[in-house]
Amino acid sequence: MTRYFIQLQYDGTHFAGWQIQPNAETIQETIEKALFKLNSNQKVNLVGCGRTDAGVHAQYYIAHFDFSKKLKPDDLVFKLNKMLPNDIAILGASIVNNEAHARFDAQKRAYKYFIHHKKNAFLNRYSHYYPGALDVNAMNKACKHLLGTQDFECFSKVKTDVKTFDCTIYDAYWKEDQNGLVFYIEANRFLRNMVRAIVGSMIDIGSGKHEPEYLKTIIASKNRNEAGESVPAGGLFLWDIQYPKDIFM
Amino acid sequence: MTRYFIQLQYDGTHFAGWQIQPNAETIQETIEKALFKLNSNQKVNLVGCGRTDAGVHAQYYIAHFDFSKKLKPDDLVFKLNKMLPNDIAILGASIVNNEAHARFDAQKRAYKYFIHHKKNAFLNRYSHYYPGALDVNAMNKACKHLLGTQDFECFSKVKTDVKTFDCTIYDAYWKEDQNGLVFYIEANRFLRNMVRAIVGSMIDIGSGKHEPEYLKTIIASKNRNEAGESVPAGGLFLWDIQYPKDIFM
Repeated sequence: MTRYFIQLQYDGTHFAGWQIQPNAETIQETIEKALFKLNSNQKVNLVGCGRTDAGVHAQYYIAHFDFSKKLKPDDLVFKLNKMLPNDIAILGASIVNNEAHARFDAQKRAYKYFIHHKKNAFLNRYSHYYPGALDVNAMNKACKHLLGTQDFECFSKVKTDVKTFDCTIYDAYWKEDQNGLVFYIEANRFLRNMVRAIVGSMIDIGSGKHEPEYLKTIIASKNRNEAGESVPAGGLFLWDIQYPKDIFM
Repeated sequence: MTRYFIQLQYDGTHFAGWQIQPNAETIQETIEKALFKLNSNQKVNLVGCGRTDAGVHAQYYIAHFDFSKKLKPDDLVFKLNKMLPNDIAILGASIVNNEAHARFDAQKRAYKYFIHHKKNAFLNRYSHYYPGALDVNAMNKACKHLLGTQDFECFSKVKTDVKTFDCTIYDAYWKEDQNGLVFYIEANRFLRNMVRAIVGSMIDIGSGKHEPEYLKTIIASKNRNEAGESVPAGGLFLWDIQYPKDIFM
Protein backbone atom coordinates (compact mmCIF):
# COMPACT_ATOMS: atom_id res chain seq x y z
CA MET A 1 0.00 0.00 0.00
CA THR A 2 1.13 3.52 -0.70
CA ARG A 3 0.03 6.42 1.50
CA TYR A 4 -0.75 9.72 -0.17
CA PHE A 5 -1.29 13.18 1.24
CA ILE A 6 -3.49 15.38 -0.92
CA GLN A 7 -3.59 19.17 -0.63
CA LEU A 8 -6.95 20.58 -1.57
CA GLN A 9 -9.25 23.57 -1.31
CA TYR A 10 -13.02 23.70 -1.21
CA ASP A 11 -15.89 26.11 -1.27
CA GLY A 12 -17.99 24.82 1.64
CA THR A 13 -21.21 26.68 0.71
CA HIS A 14 -23.06 23.66 -0.63
CA PHE A 15 -21.60 21.02 1.67
CA ALA A 16 -22.71 19.85 5.11
CA GLY A 17 -19.10 20.12 6.26
CA TRP A 18 -16.11 17.81 5.83
CA GLN A 19 -17.21 14.69 7.64
CA ILE A 20 -19.44 11.96 6.20
CA GLN A 21 -22.94 11.90 7.67
CA PRO A 22 -26.23 10.36 6.59
CA ASN A 23 -28.50 12.23 4.14
CA ALA A 24 -26.14 15.14 3.50
CA GLU A 25 -23.46 15.87 0.94
CA THR A 26 -20.04 16.27 2.53
CA ILE A 27 -16.57 16.90 1.15
CA GLN A 28 -15.13 13.68 2.54
CA GLU A 29 -17.85 11.60 0.90
CA THR A 30 -17.52 13.39 -2.45
CA ILE A 31 -13.77 12.71 -2.62
CA GLU A 32 -14.14 9.14 -1.36
CA LYS A 33 -16.57 8.47 -4.22
CA ALA A 34 -13.99 9.68 -6.74
CA LEU A 35 -11.25 7.59 -5.08
CA PHE A 36 -13.57 4.56 -5.19
CA LYS A 37 -13.78 4.84 -8.97
CA LEU A 38 -10.03 5.41 -9.29
CA ASN A 39 -9.45 2.31 -7.17
CA SER A 40 -11.46 -0.02 -9.48
CA ASN A 41 -14.58 0.28 -7.32
CA GLN A 42 -12.88 -0.63 -4.05
CA LYS A 43 -13.57 1.52 -0.97
CA VAL A 44 -10.83 3.99 0.00
CA ASN A 45 -10.82 5.61 3.45
CA LEU A 46 -10.00 9.28 3.37
CA VAL A 47 -8.73 10.83 6.61
CA GLY A 48 -8.94 14.61 6.87
CA CYS A 49 -6.81 16.99 8.93
CA GLY A 50 -9.93 18.03 10.83
CA ARG A 51 -13.64 18.60 10.60
CA THR A 52 -14.93 21.80 9.18
CA ASP A 53 -18.58 22.65 9.81
CA ALA A 54 -21.29 23.12 7.20
CA GLY A 55 -20.59 26.15 5.01
CA VAL A 56 -16.99 26.66 6.18
CA HIS A 57 -14.39 26.88 3.39
CA ALA A 58 -10.84 25.58 3.14
CA GLN A 59 -8.18 27.55 1.33
CA TYR A 60 -5.75 24.75 2.19
CA TYR A 61 -6.72 21.35 3.54
CA ILE A 62 -4.80 18.08 3.89
CA ALA A 63 -6.16 14.54 3.80
CA HIS A 64 -4.54 11.11 3.52
CA PHE A 65 -5.47 7.72 2.11
CA ASP A 66 -3.86 4.42 1.18
CA PHE A 67 -3.92 3.10 -2.32
CA SER A 68 -2.92 -0.33 -3.58
CA LYS A 69 -1.98 0.96 -7.03
CA LYS A 70 1.08 3.19 -7.21
CA LEU A 71 0.00 6.31 -9.05
CA LYS A 72 2.23 9.28 -9.88
CA PRO A 73 1.12 12.21 -7.68
CA ASP A 74 0.59 14.46 -10.74
CA ASP A 75 -1.63 11.85 -12.41
CA LEU A 76 -3.61 11.47 -9.22
CA VAL A 77 -4.19 15.24 -9.05
CA PHE A 78 -5.24 15.37 -12.69
CA LYS A 79 -7.64 12.43 -12.45
CA LEU A 80 -9.25 13.53 -9.19
CA ASN A 81 -9.77 17.08 -10.46
CA LYS A 82 -11.51 15.74 -13.56
CA MET A 83 -13.92 13.71 -11.44
CA LEU A 84 -14.58 16.19 -8.64
CA PRO A 85 -17.08 19.07 -8.88
CA ASN A 86 -15.95 22.65 -9.41
CA ASP A 87 -16.09 23.55 -5.74
CA ILE A 88 -13.39 21.04 -4.74
CA ALA A 89 -9.93 21.52 -6.25
CA ILE A 90 -6.98 19.20 -5.62
CA LEU A 91 -3.88 21.39 -5.49
CA GLY A 92 -1.25 18.67 -5.16
CA ALA A 93 -0.40 15.22 -3.89
CA SER A 94 2.64 13.63 -2.24
CA ILE A 95 3.67 10.13 -1.26
CA VAL A 96 4.29 10.03 2.50
CA ASN A 97 5.56 7.35 4.85
CA ASN A 98 3.01 4.76 5.92
CA GLU A 99 2.70 6.13 9.46
CA ALA A 100 1.99 9.72 8.40
CA HIS A 101 -1.43 10.92 9.56
CA ALA A 102 -3.28 13.99 8.25
CA ARG A 103 -4.96 14.66 11.58
CA PHE A 104 -2.56 13.46 14.28
CA ASP A 105 0.63 14.77 12.68
CA ALA A 106 -0.66 18.30 12.08
CA GLN A 107 1.35 20.66 14.28
CA LYS A 108 -0.35 23.98 13.61
CA ARG A 109 -3.58 25.01 12.02
CA ALA A 110 -4.54 28.53 10.96
CA TYR A 111 -7.94 30.02 10.18
CA LYS A 112 -8.99 33.35 8.69
CA TYR A 113 -12.33 35.07 9.14
CA PHE A 114 -13.37 37.85 6.73
CA ILE A 115 -15.71 40.77 7.48
CA HIS A 116 -16.87 43.46 5.05
CA HIS A 117 -18.66 46.65 6.03
CA LYS A 118 -20.23 47.80 2.79
CA LYS A 119 -22.91 45.69 1.11
CA ASN A 120 -21.29 43.89 -1.81
CA ALA A 121 -22.99 41.45 -4.18
CA PHE A 122 -19.86 39.35 -4.68
CA LEU A 123 -18.38 38.99 -1.19
CA ASN A 124 -21.24 37.40 0.73
CA ARG A 125 -20.26 33.86 0.02
CA TYR A 126 -16.81 34.32 1.54
CA SER A 127 -17.15 37.17 3.99
CA HIS A 128 -19.55 38.26 6.74
CA TYR A 129 -21.41 41.51 6.08
CA TYR A 130 -21.24 43.64 9.21
CA PRO A 131 -22.34 47.19 8.39
CA GLY A 132 -21.37 48.76 11.74
CA ALA A 133 -17.98 50.22 12.64
CA LEU A 134 -15.53 48.08 14.61
CA ASP A 135 -12.64 49.31 16.74
CA VAL A 136 -9.68 47.23 15.48
CA ASN A 137 -7.38 48.46 18.23
CA ALA A 138 -9.74 47.23 20.93
CA MET A 139 -10.09 43.90 19.14
CA ASN A 140 -6.33 43.54 18.86
CA LYS A 141 -5.96 44.28 22.57
CA ALA A 142 -8.42 41.47 23.25
CA CYS A 143 -6.41 39.11 21.01
CA LYS A 144 -3.54 39.18 23.53
CA HIS A 145 -5.77 37.43 26.08
CA LEU A 146 -6.17 34.49 23.70
CA LEU A 147 -2.49 33.60 23.46
CA GLY A 148 -0.90 30.59 25.15
CA THR A 149 -2.30 27.33 26.48
CA GLN A 150 -5.71 27.75 28.10
CA ASP A 151 -8.97 25.91 28.63
CA PHE A 152 -11.30 27.26 25.93
CA GLU A 153 -14.52 25.54 26.91
CA CYS A 154 -16.20 28.95 26.72
CA PHE A 155 -15.83 28.88 22.90
CA SER A 156 -16.76 25.23 22.37
CA LYS A 157 -20.03 23.70 21.19
CA VAL A 158 -21.79 22.35 24.26
CA LYS A 159 -22.28 18.91 22.70
CA THR A 160 -18.78 17.64 22.04
CA ASP A 161 -16.79 14.51 22.71
CA VAL A 162 -13.33 16.02 23.30
CA LYS A 163 -11.29 14.90 26.32
CA THR A 164 -9.82 18.32 26.99
CA PHE A 165 -10.64 21.91 26.12
CA ASP A 166 -6.99 22.95 26.30
CA CYS A 167 -5.64 24.60 23.15
CA THR A 168 -2.42 26.49 22.57
CA ILE A 169 -2.94 29.65 20.56
CA TYR A 170 0.29 30.83 18.93
CA ASP A 171 -0.98 33.90 17.14
CA ALA A 172 -4.22 35.92 16.82
CA TYR A 173 -4.73 39.35 15.28
CA TRP A 174 -7.05 41.53 13.19
CA LYS A 175 -5.88 43.34 10.07
CA GLU A 176 -7.62 45.76 7.74
CA ASP A 177 -7.92 44.70 4.12
CA GLN A 178 -9.50 46.35 1.06
CA ASN A 179 -13.06 45.33 2.01
CA GLY A 180 -13.00 45.44 5.78
CA LEU A 181 -11.27 43.24 8.34
CA VAL A 182 -9.57 39.85 8.50
CA PHE A 183 -9.02 37.83 11.67
CA TYR A 184 -6.07 35.43 11.69
CA ILE A 185 -5.67 32.74 14.33
CA GLU A 186 -3.12 29.95 14.62
CA ALA A 187 -3.18 27.14 17.16
CA ASN A 188 -2.17 23.53 17.78
CA ARG A 189 -5.87 22.57 17.66
CA PHE A 190 -9.33 24.12 17.61
CA LEU A 191 -12.56 23.08 19.28
CA ARG A 192 -15.81 22.81 17.30
CA ASN A 193 -17.21 26.22 16.41
CA MET A 194 -14.34 27.88 18.33
CA VAL A 195 -13.20 30.45 15.75
CA ARG A 196 -16.74 31.63 15.02
CA ALA A 197 -17.46 32.04 18.74
CA ILE A 198 -14.19 33.97 19.22
CA VAL A 199 -15.02 36.27 16.30
CA GLY A 200 -18.51 36.86 17.69
CA SER A 201 -17.02 37.78 21.08
CA MET A 202 -14.51 40.07 19.38
CA ILE A 203 -17.32 41.87 17.54
CA ASP A 204 -18.92 42.60 20.93
CA ILE A 205 -15.62 44.24 21.88
CA GLY A 206 -15.08 46.07 18.58
CA SER A 207 -18.61 47.47 18.67
CA GLY A 208 -18.12 48.80 22.21
CA LYS A 209 -20.50 46.42 23.98
CA HIS A 210 -17.59 45.06 26.05
CA GLU A 211 -14.06 46.16 26.98
CA PRO A 212 -11.10 44.15 25.60
CA GLU A 213 -10.50 42.76 29.11
CA TYR A 214 -13.89 41.11 29.02
CA LEU A 215 -12.32 38.35 26.95
CA LYS A 216 -10.44 37.22 30.06
CA THR A 217 -13.75 36.99 31.94
CA ILE A 218 -15.27 34.92 29.14
CA ILE A 219 -12.34 32.46 29.12
CA ALA A 220 -12.30 32.16 32.92
CA SER A 221 -16.05 31.42 32.97
CA LYS A 222 -15.68 28.23 30.85
CA ASN A 223 -19.27 28.97 29.91
CA ARG A 224 -20.39 29.21 26.26
CA ASN A 225 -23.17 31.59 27.28
CA GLU A 226 -20.65 34.21 28.38
CA ALA A 227 -19.09 34.35 24.90
CA GLY A 228 -20.55 36.25 21.95
CA GLU A 229 -22.85 34.89 19.31
CA SER A 230 -21.27 32.62 16.73
CA VAL A 231 -20.75 34.42 13.38
CA PRO A 232 -21.94 32.85 10.08
CA ALA A 233 -19.91 30.03 8.49
CA GLY A 234 -19.36 31.70 5.10
CA GLY A 235 -16.67 34.10 6.35
CA LEU A 236 -14.48 31.30 7.75
CA PHE A 237 -11.58 29.62 5.94
CA LEU A 238 -9.19 26.96 7.11
CA TRP A 239 -6.15 28.78 5.82
CA ASP A 240 -3.04 26.75 6.54
CA ILE A 241 -1.83 23.60 8.21
CA GLN A 242 1.70 22.52 9.04
CA TYR A 243 3.37 19.13 9.33
CA PRO A 244 6.86 18.00 10.29
CA LYS A 245 9.00 17.72 7.16
CA ASP A 246 10.11 14.14 7.83
CA ILE A 247 6.73 12.63 7.00
CA PHE A 248 7.25 13.23 3.28
CA MET A 249 9.20 10.58 1.37
CA MET B 1 -42.36 63.00 -10.00
CA THR B 2 -38.67 62.72 -9.28
CA ARG B 3 -36.42 60.60 -11.48
CA TYR B 4 -33.63 58.63 -9.81
CA PHE B 5 -30.65 56.81 -11.24
CA ILE B 6 -29.43 53.96 -9.06
CA GLN B 7 -25.97 52.44 -9.36
CA LEU B 8 -25.93 48.80 -8.40
CA GLN B 9 -24.04 45.53 -8.66
CA TYR B 10 -25.34 42.00 -8.73
CA ASP B 11 -24.19 38.42 -8.66
CA GLY B 12 -26.19 36.94 -11.55
CA THR B 13 -25.68 33.27 -10.60
CA HIS B 14 -29.17 32.70 -9.24
CA PHE B 15 -31.07 35.04 -11.54
CA ALA B 16 -32.61 34.44 -14.96
CA GLY B 17 -30.99 37.68 -16.17
CA TRP B 18 -32.00 41.32 -15.73
CA GLN B 19 -35.31 41.46 -17.51
CA ILE B 20 -38.68 40.44 -16.05
CA GLN B 21 -40.07 37.20 -17.48
CA PRO B 22 -42.72 34.76 -16.36
CA ASN B 23 -41.85 31.97 -13.91
CA ALA B 24 -38.25 33.05 -13.32
CA GLU B 25 -36.56 35.26 -10.78
CA THR B 26 -34.91 38.28 -12.38
CA ILE B 27 -32.99 41.25 -11.03
CA GLN B 28 -35.45 43.82 -12.43
CA GLU B 29 -38.39 42.08 -10.76
CA THR B 30 -36.58 41.73 -7.41
CA ILE B 31 -35.79 45.45 -7.27
CA GLU B 32 -39.25 46.46 -8.53
CA LYS B 33 -40.76 44.48 -5.64
CA ALA B 34 -38.65 46.44 -3.16
CA LEU B 35 -39.57 49.75 -4.83
CA PHE B 36 -43.24 48.74 -4.70
CA LYS B 37 -43.02 48.47 -0.91
CA LEU B 38 -41.08 51.72 -0.62
CA ASN B 39 -43.76 53.41 -2.74
CA SER B 40 -46.66 52.46 -0.40
CA ASN B 41 -47.58 49.44 -2.53
CA GLN B 42 -47.78 51.34 -5.82
CA LYS B 43 -46.08 49.86 -8.89
CA VAL B 44 -42.77 51.47 -9.90
CA ASN B 45 -41.28 50.83 -13.35
CA LEU B 46 -37.57 50.23 -13.28
CA VAL B 47 -35.69 50.79 -16.54
CA GLY B 48 -32.27 49.15 -16.81
CA CYS B 49 -29.28 50.23 -18.90
CA GLY B 50 -29.50 46.93 -20.78
CA ARG B 51 -30.40 43.27 -20.51
CA THR B 52 -27.90 40.89 -19.10
CA ASP B 53 -28.49 37.18 -19.70
CA ALA B 54 -29.05 34.50 -17.07
CA GLY B 55 -25.97 34.01 -14.91
CA VAL B 56 -24.15 37.16 -16.10
CA HIS B 57 -22.95 39.49 -13.33
CA ALA B 58 -22.80 43.27 -13.11
CA GLN B 59 -19.96 44.99 -11.31
CA TYR B 60 -21.64 48.30 -12.17
CA TYR B 61 -25.16 48.69 -13.51
CA ILE B 62 -27.46 51.70 -13.88
CA ALA B 63 -31.26 51.78 -13.77
CA HIS B 64 -33.81 54.58 -13.48
CA PHE B 65 -37.29 55.00 -12.04
CA ASP B 66 -39.74 57.76 -11.13
CA PHE B 67 -40.96 58.22 -7.63
CA SER B 68 -43.74 60.44 -6.37
CA LYS B 69 -42.19 60.86 -2.92
CA LYS B 70 -38.97 62.82 -2.77
CA LEU B 71 -36.46 60.65 -0.93
CA LYS B 72 -32.87 61.61 -0.14
CA PRO B 73 -30.58 59.47 -2.33
CA ASP B 74 -28.70 58.15 0.73
CA ASP B 75 -31.94 57.09 2.42
CA LEU B 76 -33.06 55.38 -0.75
CA VAL B 77 -29.79 53.41 -0.93
CA PHE B 78 -30.04 52.42 2.73
CA LYS B 79 -33.67 51.31 2.51
CA LEU B 80 -33.27 49.38 -0.74
CA ASN B 81 -30.18 47.56 0.54
CA LYS B 82 -32.06 46.48 3.64
CA MET B 83 -34.87 45.01 1.53
CA LEU B 84 -32.83 43.44 -1.26
CA PRO B 85 -31.13 40.04 -1.02
CA ASN B 86 -27.37 39.72 -0.50
CA ASP B 87 -26.60 39.23 -4.18
CA ILE B 88 -27.92 42.67 -5.18
CA ALA B 89 -26.16 45.71 -3.71
CA ILE B 90 -27.18 49.31 -4.34
CA LEU B 91 -23.99 51.37 -4.52
CA GLY B 92 -25.51 54.82 -4.86
CA ALA B 93 -28.40 56.92 -6.12
CA SER B 94 -28.72 60.32 -7.79
CA ILE B 95 -31.59 62.59 -8.77
CA VAL B 96 -31.49 63.17 -12.53
CA ASN B 97 -33.48 65.34 -14.89
CA ASN B 98 -36.85 63.95 -15.93
CA GLU B 99 -35.71 63.12 -19.47
CA ALA B 100 -32.67 61.12 -18.41
CA HIS B 101 -32.86 57.49 -19.56
CA ALA B 102 -30.72 54.64 -18.24
CA ARG B 103 -30.75 52.81 -21.55
CA PHE B 104 -30.96 55.46 -24.27
CA ASP B 105 -28.52 57.92 -22.72
CA ALA B 106 -25.75 55.39 -22.11
CA GLN B 107 -22.82 56.35 -24.33
CA LYS B 108 -20.39 53.54 -23.66
CA ARG B 109 -20.64 50.15 -22.04
CA ALA B 110 -17.74 47.95 -20.99
CA TYR B 111 -17.64 44.23 -20.19
CA LYS B 112 -14.95 42.02 -18.70
CA TYR B 113 -14.62 38.27 -19.14
CA PHE B 114 -12.42 36.28 -16.72
CA ILE B 115 -10.62 33.01 -17.47
CA HIS B 116 -8.54 30.93 -15.06
CA HIS B 117 -6.26 28.06 -16.03
CA LYS B 118 -5.78 26.17 -12.78
CA LYS B 119 -8.74 24.51 -11.08
CA ASN B 120 -9.77 26.71 -8.17
CA ALA B 121 -12.66 26.07 -5.78
CA PHE B 122 -13.43 29.76 -5.29
CA LEU B 123 -13.21 31.24 -8.78
CA ASN B 124 -15.78 29.20 -10.69
CA ARG B 125 -18.67 31.45 -9.97
CA TYR B 126 -16.95 34.46 -11.49
CA SER B 127 -14.46 33.05 -13.96
CA HIS B 128 -14.37 30.40 -16.70
CA TYR B 129 -12.07 27.45 -16.04
CA TYR B 130 -10.06 26.79 -19.18
CA PRO B 131 -7.18 24.43 -18.38
CA GLY B 132 -5.40 24.71 -21.74
CA ALA B 133 -2.76 27.28 -22.66
CA LEU B 134 -3.83 30.36 -24.64
CA ASP B 135 -1.59 32.56 -26.80
CA VAL B 136 -2.40 36.08 -25.56
CA ASN B 137 -0.41 37.73 -28.33
CA ALA B 138 -2.47 36.01 -31.01
CA MET B 139 -5.67 36.95 -29.19
CA ASN B 140 -4.58 40.58 -28.93
CA LYS B 141 -3.78 40.60 -32.65
CA ALA B 142 -7.32 39.39 -33.31
CA CYS B 143 -8.72 42.17 -31.07
CA LYS B 144 -7.60 44.77 -33.61
CA HIS B 145 -10.08 43.36 -36.12
CA LEU B 146 -12.92 44.12 -33.73
CA LEU B 147 -12.37 47.87 -33.52
CA GLY B 148 -14.56 50.46 -35.21
CA THR B 149 -18.11 50.38 -36.53
CA GLN B 150 -19.03 47.06 -38.12
CA ASP B 151 -21.96 44.72 -38.63
CA PHE B 152 -21.57 42.09 -35.90
CA GLU B 153 -24.42 39.75 -36.86
CA CYS B 154 -21.87 36.89 -36.66
CA PHE B 155 -21.77 37.29 -32.86
CA SER B 156 -25.50 37.81 -32.30
CA LYS B 157 -28.14 35.38 -31.10
CA VAL B 158 -30.07 34.23 -34.16
CA LYS B 159 -33.43 35.09 -32.57
CA THR B 160 -33.29 38.81 -31.94
CA ASP B 161 -35.44 41.85 -32.62
CA VAL B 162 -32.74 44.48 -33.22
CA LYS B 163 -33.03 46.76 -36.25
CA THR B 164 -29.32 46.83 -36.96
CA PHE B 165 -26.29 44.72 -36.08
CA ASP B 166 -23.94 47.71 -36.29
CA CYS B 167 -21.89 48.33 -33.16
CA THR B 168 -18.92 50.61 -32.61
CA ILE B 169 -16.18 48.95 -30.61
CA TYR B 170 -13.85 51.49 -29.01
CA ASP B 171 -11.46 49.18 -27.22
CA ALA B 172 -10.82 45.43 -26.88
CA TYR B 173 -7.84 43.65 -25.35
CA TRP B 174 -6.66 40.70 -23.26
CA LYS B 175 -4.54 41.10 -20.16
CA GLU B 176 -2.92 38.60 -17.82
CA ASP B 177 -4.00 38.74 -14.20
CA GLN B 178 -3.06 36.68 -11.14
CA ASN B 179 -5.35 33.76 -12.04
CA GLY B 180 -5.24 33.75 -15.82
CA LEU B 181 -6.65 36.17 -18.38
CA VAL B 182 -9.15 39.02 -18.53
CA PHE B 183 -10.83 40.27 -21.69
CA TYR B 184 -11.95 43.91 -21.73
CA ILE B 185 -14.29 45.29 -24.37
CA GLU B 186 -15.91 48.71 -24.67
CA ALA B 187 -18.57 49.69 -27.21
CA ASN B 188 -21.51 51.98 -27.80
CA ARG B 189 -23.81 48.93 -27.67
CA PHE B 190 -23.70 45.15 -27.58
CA LEU B 191 -25.89 42.53 -29.22
CA ARG B 192 -27.33 39.65 -27.22
CA ASN B 193 -24.69 37.06 -26.33
CA MET B 194 -22.10 39.07 -28.28
CA VAL B 195 -19.27 39.18 -25.72
CA ARG B 196 -19.50 35.47 -24.96
CA ALA B 197 -19.43 34.63 -28.68
CA ILE B 198 -16.42 36.91 -29.19
CA VAL B 199 -14.56 35.29 -26.28
CA GLY B 200 -15.36 31.82 -27.65
CA SER B 201 -13.98 32.84 -31.04
CA MET B 202 -10.89 34.30 -29.37
CA ILE B 203 -10.27 31.02 -27.52
CA ASP B 204 -10.22 29.25 -30.90
CA ILE B 205 -7.48 31.69 -31.87
CA GLY B 206 -5.54 31.51 -28.60
CA SER B 207 -5.58 27.71 -28.67
CA GLY B 208 -4.20 27.65 -32.22
CA LYS B 209 -7.32 26.34 -33.97
CA HIS B 210 -7.49 29.52 -36.04
CA GLU B 211 -5.14 32.37 -37.01
CA PRO B 212 -5.87 35.89 -35.65
CA GLU B 213 -6.95 36.94 -39.16
CA TYR B 214 -9.76 34.43 -39.03
CA LEU B 215 -11.70 36.95 -36.96
CA LYS B 216 -12.07 39.08 -40.10
CA THR B 217 -13.55 36.10 -41.94
CA ILE B 218 -16.02 35.51 -39.10
CA ILE B 219 -17.18 39.13 -39.11
CA ALA B 220 -17.48 39.26 -42.92
CA SER B 221 -19.58 36.06 -42.93
CA LYS B 222 -22.36 37.63 -40.79
CA ASN B 223 -23.04 34.02 -39.83
CA ARG B 224 -23.21 32.93 -36.18
CA ASN B 225 -22.08 29.44 -37.18
CA GLU B 226 -18.70 30.78 -38.31
CA ALA B 227 -17.95 32.20 -34.85
CA GLY B 228 -16.72 30.13 -31.92
CA GLU B 229 -18.83 28.53 -29.23
CA SER B 230 -20.31 30.88 -26.65
CA VAL B 231 -18.42 30.70 -23.32
CA PRO B 232 -20.30 30.22 -19.99
CA ALA B 233 -22.14 33.16 -18.42
CA GLY B 234 -20.37 33.07 -15.03
CA GLY B 235 -17.14 34.65 -16.32
CA LEU B 236 -18.92 37.72 -17.71
CA PHE B 237 -19.36 41.04 -15.92
CA LEU B 238 -20.93 44.25 -17.10
CA TRP B 239 -18.09 46.40 -15.82
CA ASP B 240 -18.80 50.03 -16.57
CA ILE B 241 -21.27 52.34 -18.25
CA GLN B 242 -20.95 56.01 -19.11
CA TYR B 243 -23.46 58.85 -19.39
CA PRO B 244 -23.18 62.49 -20.38
CA LYS B 245 -22.60 64.61 -17.28
CA ASP B 246 -25.51 66.97 -17.94
CA ILE B 247 -28.18 64.41 -17.06
CA PHE B 248 -27.39 64.70 -13.36
CA MET B 249 -29.09 67.50 -11.45
